[in-house]
Amino acid sequence: MSASDVETTARLHNFSAGPAVLPEPVLERVREELLNWNGCGMSVMEMSHRSAAFESIIGKAEADLRALLGLSDDYAVLFLQGGATLQFTMVAANLRAAGASADYVLSGHWSKAALKEAQKTGAARVAGSTEAEGFKHVPARADLQLDPNAAYLHFTSNNTIYGTEWFGEPTPPAGVPLVCDTSSDMLSRPIAVEKYGLIYAGAQKNLGPAGVTLVIVRKGLLERVPAGLPAMLDYKLMADNKSLYNTPPCFAIYVVGLVLDWLRGLGGLAEMEQRNARKAGLVYAAIDGSGGFYRGHARPDSRSRMNITFRLPSEDLEKAFVKQSTAAGLDGLKGHRSVGGLRASTYNALPLASVETLVQFMQDFQKKNG
Amino acid sequence: MSASDVETTARLHNFSAGPAVLPEPVLERVREELLNWNGCGMSVMEMSHRSAAFESIIGKAEADLRALLGLSDDYAVLFLQGGATLQFTMVAANLRAAGASADYVLSGHWSKAALKEAQKTGAARVAGSTEAEGFKHVPARADLQLDPNAAYLHFTSNNTIYGTEWFGEPTPPAGVPLVCDTSSDMLSRPIAVEKYGLIYAGAQKNLGPAGVTLVIVRKGLLERVPAGLPAMLDYKLMADNKSLYNTPPCFAIYVVGLVLDWLRGLGGLAEMEQRNARKAGLVYAAIDGSGGFYRGHARPDSRSRMNITFRLPSEDLEKAFVKQSTAAGLDGLKGHRSVGGLRASTYNALPLASVETLVQFMQDFQKKNG
Repeated sequence: MSASDVETTARLHNFSAGPAVLPEPVLERVREELLNWNGCGMSVMEMSHRSAAFESIIGKAEADLRALLGLSDDYAVLFLQGGATLQFTMVAANLRAAGASADYVLSGHWSKAALKEAQKTGAARVAGSTEAEGFKHVPARADLQLDPNAAYLHFTSNNTIYGTEWFGEPTPPAGVPLVCDTSSDMLSRPIAVEKYGLIYAGAQKNLGPAGVTLVIVRKGLLERVPAGLPAMLDYKLMADNKSLYNTPPCFAIYVVGLVLDWLRGLGGLAEMEQRNARKAGLVYAAIDGSGGFYRGHARPDSRSRMNITFRLPSEDLEKAFVKQSTAAGLDGLKGHRSVGGLRASTYNALPLASVETLVQFMQDFQKKNG
Repeated sequence: MSASDVETTARLHNFSAGPAVLPEPVLERVREELLNWNGCGMSVMEMSHRSAAFESIIGKAEADLRALLGLSDDYAVLFLQGGATLQFTMVAANLRAAGASADYVLSGHWSKAALKEAQKTGAARVAGSTEAEGFKHVPARADLQLDPNAAYLHFTSNNTIYGTEWFGEPTPPAGVPLVCDTSSDMLSRPIAVEKYGLIYAGAQKNLGPAGVTLVIVRKGLLERVPAGLPAMLDYKLMADNKSLYNTPPCFAIYVVGLVLDWLRGLGGLAEMEQRNARKAGLVYAAIDGSGGFYRGHARPDSRSRMNITFRLPSEDLEKAFVKQSTAAGLDGLKGHRSVGGLRASTYNALPLASVETLVQFMQDFQKKNG
């Protein structure tokens, strides 16, 4: 057994909601290239962002993203900083004209946070919400009350904390751009980008390490960007400079690029969707087959394939589950305090073997405690 | 010769102005821990920012920084995103009350950029400038015209593009906090933090990889932070949450932590100042001893120890120097277009051997072309 094997077998089953597990081949490649990228004599961390080497790295990342999504030239791709939280501010600052109002659909914690940030600087209204039902499902499209004059319609495609996901996006009124926070399900399945005006995602769940935020924006919308925005909040400035107005988070972009390359090598988003459906399906089957011992938080028609939230018959049993699963090498299963119980995040990079290990653990735990 | 030796000897002499060379022991440790940090079973890139493991990483980074600077509890330490450019906006948004004006000393490109961002959102005036003299030196303290009611006095301690540095900071009027962009000389020498209200630095020159920005702020100044700022622009929110309001750039913070640990191991900032003075001194001696073949851009009393800018007798010779030095494994020596010629950045992590190789190359080049 080589040193590398020891390290591999010592790795945990990582169900963290984010930052989250990365593909092991990506990490191995990062390690291999750490001191000397592609024979260039330095680490990616040490390269000028104006160098030909880094330009090839960011260029390939963008090209791979475009290939995965079938993205047309009508869209710009930006690699920014500040996470989804800075996007909450930037979307409103760039796309909502003075005096205009934007629509927000509330389906969980993060969509509420997006609304709150937008309301700090202008008008933003609630176009629909399932908060009264504990965010157990996403709003039905028929229940949305949409402003035909809204600057944009914002929603959150996957709700990390509550474990719900949209299957089919809301349809905005004619001329109203659709804006989506896809931080926790970006690239987990194909997405009809042409329906969207702007998509953003913090990288640290499906795309790579924390510290870089992906933004895909229809170029026509950049005409809305008002003059005089702070440089780091200005989509147009960032697009005009291909994300190199100032020093970008180079190493995080490099790792995202390796993840995109890995995704393409696996067969792309349709293949990833199948794998994710299979993984999530195994856990939901374990919940549904437990005779009520495990109870899913999400209503079945809104069940997330990325974050699976469930409760046990008592809080004591939940604590025991967290403790014993951690001891068994299953990490990050404790649920968010807003929902309680357990949460298994099954992002792109989580191996099927980790899910199988979890399902076996769930069954064993139930046998002992059911 | 082991594989590791091959990799080491293949590394270039990296004179890049930033992102810049990192200490090789730091990179080796990153490589070693890449898939499994401290035996925890995952990469730092895969850890929840709420985990005990990551809290220990960011906690040790802050503690090491405090030890290196002798930082008192009167100051908060923040690890943010967006580089110095976002700080240009944040400093004004947080520290300048509505209707108030801030003072800016102009000593190069980046101090002008800081002023421009501050002027987008309120009043900011020039308290001194050496632009008319091509930024060949920093303003003399006696030449500054300071507003006694300024919200703060801002300056840039080292001018990366022009190769000048302040030795001794400007003295603001009583009650006016001193704010400094130290992006390119932070931790290159001891700094009297108690003279400052706020210090910020993008990491990618002396501190670590691009993607994290260090801010040190006197806690009393946080009382000025207005209510209702966008979350990601709010120093108080970030301080109250110890930089963990949202997901921080975890991996970049981890690498900064390793650099701080390396600095402490070497003996701290006094030792680093000596090493940097010796390295820069060798290059300046080569310039001064060349009989006018090499001509320094900076006036001797403002010579930067981080970025050494110089010209050759002709642009053709400068091009030949860049080409031949690159071929000889000396990378990143081409000067910024604003100054032209050559620039050797000699940050903390640049080994003395790289400087000695450069000086030898300069002497050989002059012999052939002088």
